[in-house]
Amino acid sequence: MTQSSNTHTVGVLSLGLIGGSFAKAFIRGGYTVYAYDVASSSMHKAQADGVAGTLDDTTIGACELIVLAGYPDVCKRWLEAHAASIAADALVIDTAGVKRALCQACTNIAAEHSWTFIGCHPMAGTQFSGYGHARASLFVNAPLVVCLPENYPGTSELLGRLRLLLEPCGFASFTCATPEFHDEQIAYTSQLAHVVSNAYVKSPAAQAHKGFSAGSYKDLTRVARLNATMWTELFLDNADKLSAEIGTLIQNLQAYKDALDTNDAHTLHALLEEGDRLKKEAEAR
Amino acid sequence: MTQSSNTHTVGVLSLGLIGGSFAKAFIRGGYTVYAYDVASSSMHKAQADGVAGTLDDTTIGACELIVLAGYPDVCKRWLEAHAASIAADALVIDTAGVKRALCQACTNIAAEHSWTFIGCHPMAGTQFSGYGHARASLFVNAPLVVCLPENYPGTSELLGRLRLLLEPCGFASFTCATPEFHDEQIAYTSQLAHVVSNAYVKSPAAQAHKGFSAGSYKDLTRVARLNATMWTELFLDNADKLSAEIGTLIQNLQAYKDALDTNDAHTLHALLEEGDRLKKEAEAR
Repeated sequence: MTQSSNTHTVGVLSLGLIGGSFAKAFIRGGYTVYAYDVASSSMHKAQADGVAGTLDDTTIGACELIVLAGYPDVCKRWLEAHAASIAADALVIDTAGVKRALCQACTNIAAEHSWTFIGCHPMAGTQFSGYGHARASLFVNAPLVVCLPENYPGTSELLGRLRLLLEPCGFASFTCATPEFHDEQIAYTSQLAHVVSNAYVKSPAAQAHKGFSAGSYKDLTRVARLNATMWTELFLDNADKLSAEIGTLIQNLQAYKDALDTNDAHTLHALLEEGDRLKKEAEAR
Repeated sequence: MTQSSNTHTVGVLSLGLIGGSFAKAFIRGGYTVYAYDVASSSMHKAQADGVAGTLDDTTIGACELIVLAGYPDVCKRWLEAHAASIAADALVIDTAGVKRALCQACTNIAAEHSWTFIGCHPMAGTQFSGYGHARASLFVNAPLVVCLPENYPGTSELLGRLRLLLEPCGFASFTCATPEFHDEQIAYTSQLAHVVSNAYVKSPAAQAHKGFSAGSYKDLTRVARLNATMWTELFLDNADKLSAEIGTLIQNLQAYKDALDTNDAHTLHALLEEGDRLKKEAEAR
């Protein structure tokens, strides 16, 4: 018989879009949820939605899972301050979009205690932020990237516990990766896409294209609108990887420009055919 | 009483995706359609679909409208060879994705005759090509960009005739532009998007992203797959404008890279906020 999931107690730090969505999913799953957010208005709304009480030193010890969903620096300072109150067998996860810096900091804190830290990145979001946009279904069918502790003896048991506790969220898959590999991939699939989209609209032509806008333009500029404060922090936490990806793209774009400037049909054709082939190969993987 | 549209006779040169879709739309509209394609298999299919016969010197003179839908060079040579057979009050349009070169060539030929040439670019297409993918509804709700002859005395009467003859296609809007402005815009909204998408997949990370692929990546790389032969010709016909747009984008991307490389949060934030604002302004136009 599988353990009934509605017996769990969990904690959520920060009730923005991500933390709020975790809280709502856990509540819908029948969990007892303690939460903390610096904004008392979010706390009041969350309690009206079913949050049992404040995540503090009187409730932290009851939590089997604690989700750190604030800005990286807020999470790190909260964990330092409350590390001693966390139950010995608890799991602590974060949700940051960049993994090396925060994983290292949290792993260092965890090393002084018995509980376990697991870096997590739910690959879901919207262009909106704040508790008001949080919903229990945000993570349904989304992939979760998991950075497990290195050289941990019971990895598969640990992943099993995490999957069980996160069941109400409805994640589609759990992809294990090192923080290093995660950050490399995310620099390419997400961060570079946002930079390119944000840069694309800076051409003077962007303000004059009425009647000319094709589907390709809409796709290229869909994520041009973004939360500048949040992305500045995420980009700087991954500056080396993102800068390398921008550099690679600039170099590749320059090759097309050179072919155009020298009227070199042969090279231009080869460049276009190469991109077509690489996209086809990437899709087949 | 409006003129019944099912009395018209039109000609279509080349039965690929675009020409075939024009032919099918005209047939559905009850027109008499003559067509020519170098591939006899396409001609046979088109005749089975309702094309009345071959567009040649015995039928050209009956056409009120002729649609040149082949590769630019094919269109130009066909028009030179058959210019004298075209009825004095006929309209001749092309469908090329770049307008300066072909418009100039066709306008020069038209200057020797009484019929009128109008440059057109239907903003519709798919990633598929050939008569087999052509459909009568391809242009329904698509914008049509129209390059009317300069200093033409009866512009609004001309546009009225064109709209009436193209009624079966179902275009959503007729946007008038000079070939110069069209090519500037298309370099940005369509050609640059294809170059960026095609270049984006050339990062080594493209072949390893399983489990990390976000919606933004999918959007950025949707048009990476393309017909290299067709786009090489279109890009080279617009090399100056497209090269300038690639240059602008490279310069803008370099600014983000510089901010990352110098850990300059203030500049990075300003760059992201500027892109967010410009996208918002472009959407509001």
